[in-house]
Amino acid sequence: MPAALPALFGQTTPETSRRLLLAALEAFAEQGYHATTTRDIARRVGRSPAAVYIHYRSKDDLLVELSRIGHQDVLRTVEDAVAEAGPPAEVVRRFVTRFAAWHAEYHALARVVQHERRALPPAAAEEVRTLRRRFEPLLRAELVRGGKTGEFTISDLDGTTLAILSLCIDVARWYEPGGGRKPAAIGELYADLVLRMLRTSATPAPDGA
Amino acid sequence: MPAALPALFGQTTPETSRRLLLAALEAFAEQGYHATTTRDIARRVGRSPAAVYIHYRSKDDLLVELSRIGHQDVLRTVEDAVAEAGPPAEVVRRFVTRFAAWHAEYHALARVVQHERRALPPAAAEEVRTLRRRFEPLLRAELVRGGKTGEFTISDLDGTTLAILSLCIDVARWYEPGGGRKPAAIGELYADLVLRMLRTSATPAPDGA
Repeated sequence: MPAALPALFGQTTPETSRRLLLAALEAFAEQGYHATTTRDIARRVGRSPAAVYIHYRSKDDLLVELSRIGHQDVLRTVEDAVAEAGPPAEVVRRFVTRFAAWHAEYHALARVVQHERRALPPAAAEEVRTLRRRFEPLLRAELVRGGKTGEFTISDLDGTTLAILSLCIDVARWYEPGGGRKPAAIGELYADLVLRMLRTSATPAPDGA
Repeated sequence: MPAALPALFGQTTPETSRRLLLAALEAFAEQGYHATTTRDIARRVGRSPAAVYIHYRSKDDLLVELSRIGHQDVLRTVEDAVAEAGPPAEVVRRFVTRFAAWHAEYHALARVVQHERRALPPAAAEEVRTLRRRFEPLLRAELVRGGKTGEFTISDLDGTTLAILSLCIDVARWYEPGGGRKPAAIGELYADLVLRMLRTSATPAPDGA
């Protein structure tokens, strides 16, 4: 488990709630949500199943909380990336670098959240859908802006936006810690590739963008 | 279920074996592998659980067979794409077009096979790993060839190869039939984006005009 992960759950208190959440993530990642029992989760923190119910109503609740924290954190990450001013290529570079790196850093969480989306109760599923709809317009606006400045030439705006998000999200599927590529390096490579996808071909790359 | 899917299982005989395989795929896609019982699968074809055991030793066997058929079919698809001669950009275009379109067409199969890889028994998992290792060198060789002809400029060969495969594979995650984009159109868009990633950009005019 990467050192960064407990930090992501820093606001989950008391500590037992946080430890149970991390244990649930580990168990869901290893066995899948459906095959995991509250007993499995409790055992990982040396507690009885009853202890889980003090902190969470059900196994569902643990999945909902993991999904909520993951989506909120990655959304905040890309919102920060677009909030910093700059020409479109610079903003897209920050967006892709951080979005791809996030999916490497938190690959275990991202995989569980993706794979088990169907297991979410309806209200939580709707909440997550609402969060997920906010990524696409953030990136799309920068592509539109780059089209207007002439930095980008994009023939299929929706398709290109989707492809860029998809490329970054899939990092969580293939990433292996210790596999030679660090999250930040993946982010940088991906930003280079994406800017090549977008740039008006005769325009030389501005330095640093 | 797309009309193409039963064709993929055309060599699975007798018909009951094929119907059970399709039913297993549906059940795994809807409920996940671990939460599916042989009874669930049997019920979908109007049989008793005992009927499953006439054709397959276990639920494992059904997953192994789905995984094998899926991997073999997509491997054949890209092997055909590179077997046809042509300049590297043309071969890469065919590879990406067909590889991405395959993941749209067979998204249900691809999702199950990806998500449930950990559930494969060790021997089958090793067989699948062996098949999976064959994609990367096929694409990589074309990128190397394009670097030599000067068509492509690639700074990180391994990372770029991985990113292209990943982009296409992730189509299976987000694709929804009836979502407006047909598999072939996704393939063409993706080939355009990938060729932009790879191509040596046109030499800019002296003043960047």
